[in-house]
Amino acid sequence: MKVTFQIEGASPVQIECNAGDNLLELARRANVAIDAPCSGNGSCGKCRVKLVEGEVESIPSRHITAEEYDAGWRLSCNSKVVADCTVFVPDIASAYQSRMKTADLSSPEEVAIFQKAQNQIQESGISFSNDYMALQLTMEAPGEDDTMPDIERLQWAVQAAVECKTVKVPYSVMVKLASTLRENDFKVCVKGKLDRNVFQCMEITPFEDTAIVGCAIDIGTTTVSMVLVDLTDGKILAKGSSGNGQIRYGADVINRIIESTRPGGRKKLQDAVVKETLTPIIANLCRSAGINARSILRLCIGANTTMNHLLVGVDADPVRMDPYIPSFFAWEGLLARDLNLPANPLAPVVIAPNIGSYVGGDITAGTLATMMWDKDEMTLFIDLGTNGEIVFGNRDFLMSCACSAGPAFEGGDISCGMRATDGAVEAVTIDGATMEPTLTIVGDAGQKPVGICGSGIIDIIAELFRTRIINAKGLFVREGDRVKRDQYGMGRYVLATAEESETGREVSINEVDIDNFIRAKGAIYSGIDTLLQSVDMTPECIDKVMVAGGIGSGINMKNAISIGMLPDVELEKYQYIGNSSLTGAYAMVVSDQAIEKCHEVGANMTYLELSTYPGYMDSFVAACFLPHTDASLFPSCVQED
Amino acid sequence: MKVTFQIEGASPVQIECNAGDNLLELARRANVAIDAPCSGNGSCGKCRVKLVEGEVESIPSRHITAEEYDAGWRLSCNSKVVADCTVFVPDIASAYQSRMKTADLSSPEEVAIFQKAQNQIQESGISFSNDYMALQLTMEAPGEDDTMPDIERLQWAVQAAVECKTVKVPYSVMVKLASTLRENDFKVCVKGKLDRNVFQCMEITPFEDTAIVGCAIDIGTTTVSMVLVDLTDGKILAKGSSGNGQIRYGADVINRIIESTRPGGRKKLQDAVVKETLTPIIANLCRSAGINARSILRLCIGANTTMNHLLVGVDADPVRMDPYIPSFFAWEGLLARDLNLPANPLAPVVIAPNIGSYVGGDITAGTLATMMWDKDEMTLFIDLGTNGEIVFGNRDFLMSCACSAGPAFEGGDISCGMRATDGAVEAVTIDGATMEPTLTIVGDAGQKPVGICGSGIIDIIAELFRTRIINAKGLFVREGDRVKRDQYGMGRYVLATAEESETGREVSINEVDIDNFIRAKGAIYSGIDTLLQSVDMTPECIDKVMVAGGIGSGINMKNAISIGMLPDVELEKYQYIGNSSLTGAYAMVVSDQAIEKCHEVGANMTYLELSTYPGYMDSFVAACFLPHTDASLFPSCVQED
Repeated sequence: MKVTFQIEGASPVQIECNAGDNLLELARRANVAIDAPCSGNGSCGKCRVKLVEGEVESIPSRHITAEEYDAGWRLSCNSKVVADCTVFVPDIASAYQSRMKTADLSSPEEVAIFQKAQNQIQESGISFSNDYMALQLTMEAPGEDDTMPDIERLQWAVQAAVECKTVKVPYSVMVKLASTLRENDFKVCVKGKLDRNVFQCMEITPFEDTAIVGCAIDIGTTTVSMVLVDLTDGKILAKGSSGNGQIRYGADVINRIIESTRPGGRKKLQDAVVKETLTPIIANLCRSAGINARSILRLCIGANTTMNHLLVGVDADPVRMDPYIPSFFAWEGLLARDLNLPANPLAPVVIAPNIGSYVGGDITAGTLATMMWDKDEMTLFIDLGTNGEIVFGNRDFLMSCACSAGPAFEGGDISCGMRATDGAVEAVTIDGATMEPTLTIVGDAGQKPVGICGSGIIDIIAELFRTRIINAKGLFVREGDRVKRDQYGMGRYVLATAEESETGREVSINEVDIDNFIRAKGAIYSGIDTLLQSVDMTPECIDKVMVAGGIGSGINMKNAISIGMLPDVELEKYQYIGNSSLTGAYAMVVSDQAIEKCHEVGANMTYLELSTYPGYMDSFVAACFLPHTDASLFPSCVQED
Repeated sequence: MKVTFQIEGASPVQIECNAGDNLLELARRANVAIDAPCSGNGSCGKCRVKLVEGEVESIPSRHITAEEYDAGWRLSCNSKVVADCTVFVPDIASAYQSRMKTADLSSPEEVAIFQKAQNQIQESGISFSNDYMALQLTMEAPGEDDTMPDIERLQWAVQAAVECKTVKVPYSVMVKLASTLRENDFKVCVKGKLDRNVFQCMEITPFEDTAIVGCAIDIGTTTVSMVLVDLTDGKILAKGSSGNGQIRYGADVINRIIESTRPGGRKKLQDAVVKETLTPIIANLCRSAGINARSILRLCIGANTTMNHLLVGVDADPVRMDPYIPSFFAWEGLLARDLNLPANPLAPVVIAPNIGSYVGGDITAGTLATMMWDKDEMTLFIDLGTNGEIVFGNRDFLMSCACSAGPAFEGGDISCGMRATDGAVEAVTIDGATMEPTLTIVGDAGQKPVGICGSGIIDIIAELFRTRIINAKGLFVREGDRVKRDQYGMGRYVLATAEESETGREVSINEVDIDNFIRAKGAIYSGIDTLLQSVDMTPECIDKVMVAGGIGSGINMKNAISIGMLPDVELEKYQYIGNSSLTGAYAMVVSDQAIEKCHEVGANMTYLELSTYPGYMDSFVAACFLPHTDASLFPSCVQED
């Protein structure tokens, strides 16, 4: 039996199979990317495919309407093959995952974040510099009276240029030493690192090619972002991002770990992030910056503990198994060549240290970027990623915890959810009288809505609650043109009708979405609450709140407070700091001392395990309302009459 | 147009081609191994193939008799394709190159050489030991009160077992750390090297697997030999050898360098030695010794300068081009992973240092093995390989030079020449009256002759000269049953008729062979002569002569003296020391201090360039007679009346 996948924008793929085989599993086996954030348990509704020919047997799903079903749409995770068939796989870029975005030298605001990080790091007394260098060397050609072989000639020239006892020449340089010297009349540039008395050569190039570059990478569960950085001055050369290719093995870390423990799984998950995600982004950034990838002499990674384990290809199962002790917190020794990354083969891949199974290097790197470890002020640092992690403290102590918030902030678990890319509704206001929405959409002028990203969801729920369209439990209590109900009576609010949308599919938010989101925001709030309690503090003690995450170009903090997601402290204490994991990785890639500092921050951070902390569950349940069962905690939350 | 190669003992190979294409070139393109020591200039006659079907156009050659021509035999280097054809390629093992010989745990004599080297090294005060170790570690499994991640757990355990400040865990160990710990209940063996305060982990295995192994390799231009050695006590675990796969690109280093400068040539030559030669031998030795290749923690190479350059894959052209300065003399930094050798990826590949373009690491390693650097006695060390290199000196000085002797000592340039493997005539006596030979043949009892190896050629020429069958110029001057002449009058001596031989082809030596050999032995003698002159010494000053090389199980020194190849000093001063390059590499692989000593020997050795040394050419011409134009130099050479 055969299934043919007709992939939008790509060549079709055929695979042999047996009757009864699951369609999503077949797609994975055939390396066909079908988005499946819930990893195939039927709950997310993202793995839609369209039957073109033949037959499959599918379990009905609330994610597929009757009209869609008649048109051939099915959830691949719910479908079994019963005969030869052809299915159409829509470009997943249009929904949850996005096409790679590279070479956008970013908005001035984004670049300003890195500039600010540099300034702050320097102000704290940490040198924003490193020991990588490009040495321009002019040598004589060998002759009858100058019988030094190439390698000694090079070593002497390096030692004349920089004080050192030993000059190490690795294989990668050795194999092209003779030809590079001769092709350039013995005028060359040698790139490498001076470590105490040893100069480690890493690359030999023509005299003029003096580029030395670092690569800072945030590997999120959902999104991977990176910047290419000039190692001499910290200048951003290129910036890019893309969905994490592992997403087809599940939206959350647990599903991916389970997938990785199957035969060949570790390699599969590693390939998905290394070969399919990091490699093309790095290659693209190098192209757009006009840089040879071998000039990348250091890479720094901010990523959660699971992503770090899957990246390295080590057994990640201990992360999720009692007693939740991962294979490594900090580990030095990874080189670009180990992962076959397009970079100098000897470039170290520096991983920001994990501090527990669920507080990883993205948080230590992010904490580095917040500068809270250098301040007297009590700072609350919240990273809203696929999960939510929270750090609280100052120069004297740092407490951290992880909330199982799920992927709602990045558009997962939400029927029309998507990442903050073109077509995402990122901000919303609703007219209380007419109930009509006003949308702000990511993309060029005239862009029609495709879905809703995290910041948009916060706005919608806040506005629906303020205008009393939904109640404190998130159920629809007003009727109107924009409020629809399905055959089971489930309400939804339509932001864009099928005609108004980019895709021809309605963009809306329903009661299940809202319920999912309320649980996510409840997890965040109760995490904050518990963390403060654990050090005998209250929200009044907070001097500063720094919110990070790829939730959109920014969060409407007032709205986030009014739905009870963030503590009700003065708005001016809030600051949105973008992708702090990437900012931290940026600081580390340029500054040797920042790497040390990040390890120090990690070693000094205390991890609080919420799930076993007394009182946490009660706090969570209490937070699963709008804004909270104890409304007095949110005095600034006002509903329209 | 198509050519099909019917390869003896292998599957046929077909290649598309054009009319006029050279048959040898086509074979190389198709990766069909045809022995071509002269690299296709028609002089060696080894590249014989048999036309089975179709047509080729060949230039007649003295290497193919009229009967052979009629039977379809051609030299592939002299043949052009003119139509579709099928040619039979005989197993080249039967002639010049040999099948791999591994797993022969060697004769007691051979093992004794290594034992002796160990004793001598130790007597000289050099420690026969290294810093590699296998640590058996027993750890606790992590638990709620013992939350150390795997890597720290391992690092602590190593530090409890051996004093060190840092424990480095590389990628290759990291990726299997978690699973190896758990599969073995946290009882494992860690293999690595202690270097000052740093323990570098290289491998993690089950508790009982404590093998740590080194690999000593002699890469000769013609033959590659190696031993697998227990790093804890220097015991030989396995021994093997095989022809150098590069031989199809030419018998001598110059032809191979030229081949390597063609597009893709460096990779091709590197692959020929690394993938086709070293890799299968190492794999075989590991199998026969029951060792996992990842337990090989160090490899040491004794090889000439060109072999070293081609091994590493660096541009070898400077070796042969004025001013003859190679890319490297000594270079540290090569790892097994760089060459994809079957060994621990982090195992250093230590190359014995070259001291000039034509005196390489095989000679410094060999000099190390002679112990002459530790003695007052004046020692002459002669390595008879594909070329001949000579070292003279003692603890106070070391002079060296290279003679362009060509491959005659290893059976090259000789029509029935072969390496010292099964079927090689390795010793000969001739009855002066009957002119009948008595042959000693390598192999089991009853082995019939296939060809003649170096030691056999020395004997034959010495005996032909002693019995006055040939004169001082190497021309036949007696007639008899065993002396034949071809249509041009060229004489030859038949050691075995077609009926008496293993292959059905006559085994004989002709005047061209003898002339080639006389020039080779002349090069050696004049090299010795010139080297002695350069330090104002004469043969009387020599206290000891050590002769090395894979010329056979041994050389009849008396015969070698009587043909004027070696100086006429007392026979008891002579000692045959086998493969000194391999012995030196063996000492280095086991002993850290021997590696240092070898570098010291290399740094202290003076290189004499013969070709530009005044008087060398005269000395060479004078030596191209039997035994010498000045017979008074060889008083012990006696001819029968």
